[in-house]
Amino acid sequence: MSSSFGRLFVVTTFGESHGPAVGVVVDGMPPGIAVELAAIQRELDRRRPGQSALTTQRQEGDQVEILSGIFDGVSLGTPIAMLVRNTDARSGDYDALKDVYRPGHADYVYAQKYGVRDHRGGGRASGRETVGRVAAGALARIALATAGVEIMGGTVQVRHVKATRRDWEQVERNPVRAPDATAAREMATVIEAARERHDSVGGIVEVVATGVPAGWGDPTMAKLDALLGAAMLSIPATKGVEIGGGFGMCELEGSLTNDVFDGHQYLTNFAGGISGGISNGADIVVRVAVRPATSIGKPQSAATAEGGRRIIEIQGRHDPCICPRAVPVAESMMAIVLIDAWLRQRALRNTP
Amino acid sequence: MSSSFGRLFVVTTFGESHGPAVGVVVDGMPPGIAVELAAIQRELDRRRPGQSALTTQRQEGDQVEILSGIFDGVSLGTPIAMLVRNTDARSGDYDALKDVYRPGHADYVYAQKYGVRDHRGGGRASGRETVGRVAAGALARIALATAGVEIMGGTVQVRHVKATRRDWEQVERNPVRAPDATAAREMATVIEAARERHDSVGGIVEVVATGVPAGWGDPTMAKLDALLGAAMLSIPATKGVEIGGGFGMCELEGSLTNDVFDGHQYLTNFAGGISGGISNGADIVVRVAVRPATSIGKPQSAATAEGGRRIIEIQGRHDPCICPRAVPVAESMMAIVLIDAWLRQRALRNTP
Amino acid sequence: MSSSFGRLFVVTTFGESHGPAVGVVVDGMPPGIAVELAAIQRELDRRRPGQSALTTQRQEGDQVEILSGIFDGVSLGTPIAMLVRNTDARSGDYDALKDVYRPGHADYVYAQKYGVRDHRGGGRASGRETVGRVAAGALARIALATAGVEIMGGTVQVRHVKATRRDWEQVERNPVRAPDATAAREMATVIEAARERHDSVGGIVEVVATGVPAGWGDPTMAKLDALLGAAMLSIPATKGVEIGGGFGMCELEGSLTNDVFDGHQYLTNFAGGISGGISNGADIVVRVAVRPATSIGKPQSAATAEGGRRIIEIQGRHDPCICPRAVPVAESMMAIVLIDAWLRQRALRNTP
Amino acid sequence: MSSSFGRLFVVTTFGESHGPAVGVVVDGMPPGIAVELAAIQRELDRRRPGQSALTTQRQEGDQVEILSGIFDGVSLGTPIAMLVRNTDARSGDYDALKDVYRPGHADYVYAQKYGVRDHRGGGRASGRETVGRVAAGALARIALATAGVEIMGGTVQVRHVKATRRDWEQVERNPVRAPDATAAREMATVIEAARERHDSVGGIVEVVATGVPAGWGDPTMAKLDALLGAAMLSIPATKGVEIGGGFGMCELEGSLTNDVFDGHQYLTNFAGGISGGISNGADIVVRVAVRPATSIGKPQSAATAEGGRRIIEIQGRHDPCICPRAVPVAESMMAIVLIDAWLRQRALRNTP
Repeated sequence: MSSSFGRLFVVTTFGESHGPAVGVVVDGMPPGIAVELAAIQRELDRRRPGQSALTTQRQEGDQVEILSGIFDGVSLGTPIAMLVRNTDARSGDYDALKDVYRPGHADYVYAQKYGVRDHRGGGRASGRETVGRVAAGALARIALATAGVEIMGGTVQVRHVKATRRDWEQVERNPVRAPDATAAREMATVIEAARERHDSVGGIVEVVATGVPAGWGDPTMAKLDALLGAAMLSIPATKGVEIGGGFGMCELEGSLTNDVFDGHQYLTNFAGGISGGISNGADIVVRVAVRPATSIGKPQSAATAEGGRRIIEIQGRHDPCICPRAVPVAESMMAIVLIDAWLRQRALRNTP
Repeated sequence: MSSSFGRLFVVTTFGESHGPAVGVVVDGMPPGIAVELAAIQRELDRRRPGQSALTTQRQEGDQVEILSGIFDGVSLGTPIAMLVRNTDARSGDYDALKDVYRPGHADYVYAQKYGVRDHRGGGRASGRETVGRVAAGALARIALATAGVEIMGGTVQVRHVKATRRDWEQVERNPVRAPDATAAREMATVIEAARERHDSVGGIVEVVATGVPAGWGDPTMAKLDALLGAAMLSIPATKGVEIGGGFGMCELEGSLTNDVFDGHQYLTNFAGGISGGISNGADIVVRVAVRPATSIGKPQSAATAEGGRRIIEIQGRHDPCICPRAVPVAESMMAIVLIDAWLRQRALRNTP
Repeated sequence: MSSSFGRLFVVTTFGESHGPAVGVVVDGMPPGIAVELAAIQRELDRRRPGQSALTTQRQEGDQVEILSGIFDGVSLGTPIAMLVRNTDARSGDYDALKDVYRPGHADYVYAQKYGVRDHRGGGRASGRETVGRVAAGALARIALATAGVEIMGGTVQVRHVKATRRDWEQVERNPVRAPDATAAREMATVIEAARERHDSVGGIVEVVATGVPAGWGDPTMAKLDALLGAAMLSIPATKGVEIGGGFGMCELEGSLTNDVFDGHQYLTNFAGGISGGISNGADIVVRVAVRPATSIGKPQSAATAEGGRRIIEIQGRHDPCICPRAVPVAESMMAIVLIDAWLRQRALRNTP
Repeated sequence: MSSSFGRLFVVTTFGESHGPAVGVVVDGMPPGIAVELAAIQRELDRRRPGQSALTTQRQEGDQVEILSGIFDGVSLGTPIAMLVRNTDARSGDYDALKDVYRPGHADYVYAQKYGVRDHRGGGRASGRETVGRVAAGALARIALATAGVEIMGGTVQVRHVKATRRDWEQVERNPVRAPDATAAREMATVIEAARERHDSVGGIVEVVATGVPAGWGDPTMAKLDALLGAAMLSIPATKGVEIGGGFGMCELEGSLTNDVFDGHQYLTNFAGGISGGISNGADIVVRVAVRPATSIGKPQSAATAEGGRRIIEIQGRHDPCICPRAVPVAESMMAIVLIDAWLRQRALRNTP
C-alpha cells in the first residue's frame, strides 16, 4: 500500500537502486489507446543519469521493457508492467558506508523502521525509484493528450537565480531545463560551481497543465491541491509545494487574490487553476521546492551504526542539483494525478 | 472515497454548511482508550465560529454528539460516529447569490462538476466541513498521547507580520493564536484593519509534533511528507505546504542543509523531522500557506450562471483571516496522519 | 477501513445494537438523482424487526433521517449520511450475559480481538448493523434504476423446504419472503415450529439482478463474483455463497455447463450472468447460505469470561429464521456491488 | 485497482497468457524474514502446467525471478516484484478463434468491456494469471509460518466422488491432490474419462488453516468470511465458496450448529473457525466450488464477433479438471487473506 499512488489509475513502483531492476505496474490505463514504446523511452531518457555535465555520471541505458497490458501497440485496459534493469550499479562504492548513516539520507530511519536495509546506493530510498514513476507518467500523458491536456515543466529557480520567463520550448534546450535561456546559463554556472566545491544546491521546479476542463478533482479529502501536494512531496528531496499564488498569497488581500472570472476566462490565476479542490478551467500551476542533494563529496561527520561518529566523503556519482532530472518526475506525478481525476469525473457524470 | 482520509485510521466527513448537520465517522480508533466527550468538545470550541472579534460572528454551539464506538467511556475499536447539528444557518443570506459564482469560491466548479449544488453557504465546500476533522483529530490526539506524541500549532505569519518566537503556551492566550505575544498584537491589528476595509488577509500556520520516534511513515508513495502535504492541502483555503526548511532550502547548499545527527540528537532540523519520508526522531515541523479568505464584503464583479456579470457584496458573516481557526484544523490533520503512520508501523514490526 | 465497502460507491456503516444510533455514510452517489426519503424508508421497513410473527418482536420504528448530501430532493454528489436512532434497546436483558460467551456468537472473539466489548445485544456484531446497508442499498437501487437495472430477492429454502418457483411478486405477500406461495406456507410452518422449540433454522436467500449490460466488473481480483461473494459473506449469519450453477456444477461436465450464447441471448445460465468476473448480459443470480440464528432460547452450555461454564437460556427477542429479514440486506449488498461496477465501467470507457 | 488484493499485504498481479511475462508485486511483506527462492519455486511447481497426465500439456518451466525487495536472502520490507516469462505460448493455436467467442469463456465480455482484447490464450482471463498469486502466497506462507500458522489444501470432490478423509500428507502423493488415497484413484479415473471424451469435469477444493489465534479479521465489511469469499471467487473457474458448515447448515437447527466451546477448544466447527467475521481459534475451513473447465475439445456452437455462429473444437492444451492445479492457488489466496488480517491485528492491539 505504501508503494502505490492513485485510485483509478494506480501506479505501483518497485525496486532498489542496486537490486536487479526497478519498475512499475500501472493498473487502470484506459483501453484502446495507441502506446508507442518510444514515447515512454523518451521520457525515461529525460530522467536518465549521465545526460550532461550537470548530472550524475552513473551510466544507465534505462531501456524499458513492457511486460504486459499492451497488444498490437494498443492498451488492453489490463495492468501494464514495465521493467528497467539496473546495469551500472557500482555497489562496491558503498561498502565503506555500510555501517554509516549518511547525513541527510534515509539510512538511519530505514534501519530504525525495518531493522534491515539494503545499504547499496540508498536501496529503495534512491532517486532511482522514480524510473517507474516516469514510465507510468508517460502512459498517463498519452491518455491525457486524447483529452487535450498537456503538461509542461521546468526548473524555475536554482539558489537565488530565478527564471523570469516561462518559455517552455527552451526547457529541452538547456541542461538545467529552465524555461528561460538567460537564467539557464546563470543557473548552470551556479550548479557547476557547487560541483567543484563538492557541494550541492537546491532549487524550484514548476509544472503546468493546460487544457484541463472545469470539474476534475474532488472536494474535501481528495482535492486536486491535496493530491498534487502528495504527489510532489512523494518525490525524493522535495520539501515544499505550492499551488498558484502559494505562499506569496499570505502577504496579500482577498480583494486582490480572488481571481477575476468573466464566465469564460480567468484574468488572474492566484488559485493555480484549482478552486475548492476542483479544476476551474485555468492552467494548473504547481511549484515544488527541491532541497540541495544530500549526497555531497565534502567531508561530513556522520553517525555510525555502532553509535560512534566518522568523517566521510561520499564517493559515488551524484547530482549537484536535482532539479533538471526532477522535472520529468514532477511532470509525471502531475499527469498521474490528473488522469486519476479525469477517470473519476467520468465515473461521476457519464450518463448511460 | 473522496471524503475519506487515511488507511488504518480512516476519517470520513459529511455534511453541508446549511444542511441538517455536519459530522464524521472515524474507523480505526484503537480499542481500550479512555475518551472523554469534553476533550473532543474542547477542540471543537477552538474551531467554533464567534470566538472573538477576529472571527466570523455566525453563532454555532457546535455541541458534538457521539453516536457509536464508545462504551462506558472507552473506545471499542469500532467506528466512532460524531455529529454536530447546524443551528445558526441563515440560508436566506445566500438567496441573492443563488445564480452567482462568488469570486474565489467553488460555486462555479461545483456547478460544472456536479450539475447541481447547494448554494447556501458554500454547501460542502464550506469551512464548516472541518468540524468533522477536528472531532476526529481530537480522538487521534488522545490516542497519540498514550505514545508520548504531542501536537502544537499556531499562526506564525499574518501578511508581513511574522512570529519570531515559538512559545506555544501563548497560543490560546491571544485571538490570533500566535506563539508570540508581541507579534500577536500586531497581527490582530492587521486583521482588524482588513475587516474594516471589508477585506481579508492571508497568513501561515505552523504545526509541530514532538515525541514521534524514528521509523513512522513509509518510503516512496506514502512518505510522511506526502501524507502531511495532502492533509494540509485538503484544508479549505490552503495553497502551500512546506516541511522543515521548505522553500527556504532552495537557496542553500547541501553542506549546510544536511542535518547534523550525533546518533541521538539532531543539531539542526532542515528535514523537519522526516528523512526519506520516515520520521527521524526530531520534531516534525510543517507550515501551511493560508490564502486570504475569499468571502469579502467589498464590491466584486462576479460571473452569473446565465453567463452575465454582476457586482456583488457578500453579506454573510465571515472570517477576515482564516488562520486562527485553521490552527486546530491543521493540528487535527497532522494528528490524523501521525496516528495512521503509527498504526502502520505497529503492523510492520510487531512480533507475535 | 473495516467498516467500508466499495471503491467508487463507498458505504461506511457505524453503530452498536444498543448504542445511541446506527447509520451509514454513502460517498459516491452520482449527483442529480431524485431521492425520496420514502423510498429509503420503505426498504428499511422491510428489514425492520417486529414485522410478523416469524421475526423478532423487538420494536424499532427505524425512522431514517438524512443528514447530508440531498438538497431539494436531489442528490448533490456529496456524502449522504443517514441515521436511525435505537429506541427499544432493552439492554437489561443482557446484564446476565455480560461475562458469558454465547455459543455461536461473536462475544468471545470480540473480547479476544479488542480487549473490550459492548456486551449489550451483540454490540457491533448485531444484525442491527445492517440498517445502514439497507439505507445505502436503497440509494444504489434508485441510481441503478436509471440504468435499467432491477434487483429482486427471496427466501428460496428453509431447512428442507425449497421454493420451486421464482415468482418475485409473491415475495412481499408472505412473511417468509419466498417467491413461491406454496413453499412459503410450508416454510412458515417449519419456522414456527422451530420458534416453539426455542430453536432456530437456516435457509437460503437468492438475489437476482436484471438489466445489467455486458461489461460490468473487473477481471482478476475484482471479479463481480468476488465482490458479490465478499458482499454476501459480510452479512451476519451467512456461511456460503454461490453464483449461477454454483456448487451444483461440480458434479457436471463442461459440455453441459458452458452456457450456449447465440450472440444475443443465453439459453442457459450456469455462469449466473458473470463470465471471467464480468457481467455477460444474462441475469445475475446469487444464492446465500444463511445459518440458523445463533440466538436461541433453548438451554445451552456456554464458556464464561472467567474460564468456567454456565448453562444459559438467551432471553432477548430473536428471529427463529434470519432469511426473511436477510432478503432486503442481500438485495442491498448486490445493489452496492453493482453500482460500484457500473461507475467503474463509466470511468473506463467514457470518451470525452 | 482491479488487479490488487489486500490492504496491508497488497498483491498486484500482471500479465497476459501469451504476452512476454506474468508476475506480481507484493507490497507489505514484513521485513527481516528469510526468504528462499526455492520455497517460492516449489509452490509454483505445484501450480505449473504439465505436471501429470491429468493436467494441460503446455510446458512452462515457470522459473521465477525476484526483482526487488529481498537482499542477502532476507525481506527488506519493500515491494517484492517477481517475474515468470511465458515461453511455451503457442499463440498460433488461437488464430482460428480470433473472432469467435468461446462458450463459457470471457472472450465476449472482454470485447464488450474493453473494446479490444488479446485473444491469445484468453489473455488476462487465463488461469496463467494465478502464477503471480502463487508466488505471493508463498511469501505469505513463509511469514505466517513464523506465527505458527500452516495452510493445507486438497481436492475433496470430483464429480460425484468425494474424499471421505482429510489426510493432508496424501495430497502431494496423487495427481488429483486429494487428501484421501482411495478417493484419489477414483477421481483420477473420472478425470481421465472426461479427457478421453474431450470434455471436462468440476469438483471441490478445500483449504484449511491451523494455528490461527482468536482475534484476526474484522467485523462487518471486512469479515474473514467475506475476504476469504472474495479471495476464492477471484480465482478463475470458481462459482461458489462456503465456510465451515456452509450450505449444509441451511438444513439444520441452531441448537446443533452453535459450536460448543469449552473456553479452550471447540468440540464442533460449524463456524469454520470464524465467528462474527473474526477467527475464533479453531481451524479455518473453506470449500471452493470449481466449475468444469470451459476449454473442451468437443465440438461446440459459438457466437462470432460478426454476429454469426460457428462450430468450434478448441485445440490448445487444457486441463480436463482444474482442481489439482487450483489447490495451490486456493491455498495461496487463503494465505494472502490471513497475513493481511494478522498485520491488521498487530496494528490494532500492539502497545508501544
